[in-house]
Amino acid sequence: MLGNFVYCNPTKLYFGKEALEGLRKELPKYGKNVLLIYGGGSIKKNGIYDAVVKILKECGKEVAEDAGVMPNPTSEKVNDGVQRARACKADLLLAVGGGSVIDYAKAVSVSVHCKEDPWTKFYLNMEEPEGEIVPVGAVLTMVGTGSEMNGGSVITNHDQKLKIGHVFGEEVFPKFACLNPEFTFTLPQYQMVAGFYDILCHILEQYLSDFDDNTSDYVMEGLMRSLVHSSLIALKDPKNYEARSNIMWTATWALNTFVAMGKTTDWEVHMLGHAVGAYTNATHGMTLSAVSMAYYRHILPYGLAKFARYAVNVWGVNAEGKSEKQVAEEGLARMEDWMRTLGLAMDLKTLGVTPDMIEGIADATYINEGGYKVLNRQEVIEILKESL
Amino acid sequence: MLGNFVYCNPTKLYFGKEALEGLRKELPKYGKNVLLIYGGGSIKKNGIYDAVVKILKECGKEVAEDAGVMPNPTSEKVNDGVQRARACKADLLLAVGGGSVIDYAKAVSVSVHCKEDPWTKFYLNMEEPEGEIVPVGAVLTMVGTGSEMNGGSVITNHDQKLKIGHVFGEEVFPKFACLNPEFTFTLPQYQMVAGFYDILCHILEQYLSDFDDNTSDYVMEGLMRSLVHSSLIALKDPKNYEARSNIMWTATWALNTFVAMGKTTDWEVHMLGHAVGAYTNATHGMTLSAVSMAYYRHILPYGLAKFARYAVNVWGVNAEGKSEKQVAEEGLARMEDWMRTLGLAMDLKTLGVTPDMIEGIADATYINEGGYKVLNRQEVIEILKESL
Repeated sequence: MLGNFVYCNPTKLYFGKEALEGLRKELPKYGKNVLLIYGGGSIKKNGIYDAVVKILKECGKEVAEDAGVMPNPTSEKVNDGVQRARACKADLLLAVGGGSVIDYAKAVSVSVHCKEDPWTKFYLNMEEPEGEIVPVGAVLTMVGTGSEMNGGSVITNHDQKLKIGHVFGEEVFPKFACLNPEFTFTLPQYQMVAGFYDILCHILEQYLSDFDDNTSDYVMEGLMRSLVHSSLIALKDPKNYEARSNIMWTATWALNTFVAMGKTTDWEVHMLGHAVGAYTNATHGMTLSAVSMAYYRHILPYGLAKFARYAVNVWGVNAEGKSEKQVAEEGLARMEDWMRTLGLAMDLKTLGVTPDMIEGIADATYINEGGYKVLNRQEVIEILKESL
Repeated sequence: MLGNFVYCNPTKLYFGKEALEGLRKELPKYGKNVLLIYGGGSIKKNGIYDAVVKILKECGKEVAEDAGVMPNPTSEKVNDGVQRARACKADLLLAVGGGSVIDYAKAVSVSVHCKEDPWTKFYLNMEEPEGEIVPVGAVLTMVGTGSEMNGGSVITNHDQKLKIGHVFGEEVFPKFACLNPEFTFTLPQYQMVAGFYDILCHILEQYLSDFDDNTSDYVMEGLMRSLVHSSLIALKDPKNYEARSNIMWTATWALNTFVAMGKTTDWEVHMLGHAVGAYTNATHGMTLSAVSMAYYRHILPYGLAKFARYAVNVWGVNAEGKSEKQVAEEGLARMEDWMRTLGLAMDLKTLGVTPDMIEGIADATYINEGGYKVLNRQEVIEILKESL
């Protein structure tokens, strides 16, 4: 049953080959000072940096820079960014990159006018922002996280070996985002397929919870079918605009709050993946793929009917003459085939996890309560060992 | 292929049994004067009027009223509403009702501060509002039109025998809407099933256009499957909260612009239905159902592959060993069975159309160009005659 909820998503999206032109419509709404936030500099090689700076200049902006945002942005880097935003009196934080860069920009946005330690307040203690929030805009260069249209912000603290996500309210959502599928063409294959799995996993985290009859589940089945279909096209032909544009759009809707409305959700694969990420700094999507099959096979008996529905409606399993369990397992087998075809990390060893890390990763794994089975510590360790 | 587009939908939705409490969060954002807009008075019988007025009073509002909005709101009534809104210096137009009441409130909202004739400017000439727009809020009591989360506003001019819809931009969308599925429980069965068909038809108008590989088509298939499933439950048990809440949510997403992004769309069934509505004042959803089967069978040869996909993915037709045409036709046959089961109007005679009206209705039918076949006048007449 659809529970009570409030839905609001005010982010404005400019989508397509001309998406960057949306900047010209949006920039005049903000003051003069823009902090341009980006990652390791790939945007300087593929021309996106130049194109963005050109528009910023033409719109009369003063541009300060905050480069070097790492794939798993750290609390130390957030402190650095806050100083930069204060120094240039930023009226707008323009994040150019993937989920990490946008997640990071949100962390800075709530911290600029906050006197407390951002990591402690917003991540460790999960408090909400009270003061002024510097608006964030985004130019997306990598799909997967959905950060362009939600309030999610995942930050890592290496000293404490913790990677924590805070889902902020709509006042922290990017005000606008430019989504040009062509900007994702130059992404290395490893990052591309990791993003594909991140998308599927986002949907599954919301789909594999409760047995209610819920419109959202039907919508998620459609999104997953589209993703699987387009991912196989993009794998062979990464510059296929149709496939990449469908994947970009699917990624946004997989995690912009819509499909979770009125539902319970799980998110345990992300909890496992975040713990792995805190220990290894591995690519987010790959930390999810490496633990997924062990996790799903572990919880399958508790969510049998839904796993069987998933098998039929997403993976096209023919249920005739088979038990619910057979159907459900066949669905997971087809999913695993697809994952191997994409070339995802299917075990933790590949990501640098060693047996001596297992206890620590288990300690860092937050246990959620929305899934078909609330894990105990022993189960977490079993799943991690099976994933090694 | 997903074309270029801009997506933004800022409407805030309060959904569920406590949805009306959302009013307490929203009302303080607006000035003191509220124009309460509603229809024939059913909200006085079922207690919704009292509940709304109680909250308005408790929030310290001055309430003026604009009652008697008819099922197909007229341009004359819009002029009346504009006078009322001016007289009470309305800071907020609170529409309590279904699509007609909300469509009407939008027409008033753009006209209060406009000196020109609303019908001529916004509907006949399709101009955009330039001046101040009075904000609209909505309490939904009937589902189908999606008006609670879009800019659509359909107004009828009886003198000119025209029913025209203007799709306004996001500045005209309701600022907020309260969606309590229980508020739809007391709706007469005829109105309920007409709403169900309106929802399916909205989706089909966007689905049955282009042959691109498009994520939106997968999402629409999910929405349609959920709708068909829940509609049969609601038909037998109209107070089934789960079914009614799924249908309410599906209706909103069927027409809040999301599924149309990047796609071409058709809307020819609505053009036919609007022309019928201008001649008969029949219930909107029934004008659509009465002409649908003749229209879809007429365009089927031009959109064969999509009709076949529709048959398999929405109606569960087994395609094995059948031609594409057989599959497509079997899908439409199953759709027709579902329509008859719901008790929809399946011909125009039932709605009061007589053979001598056909030419006039054809003249009033606007020809769209996004469908699988751009109709000529002779085809419009054939379809209307087949629907008689």
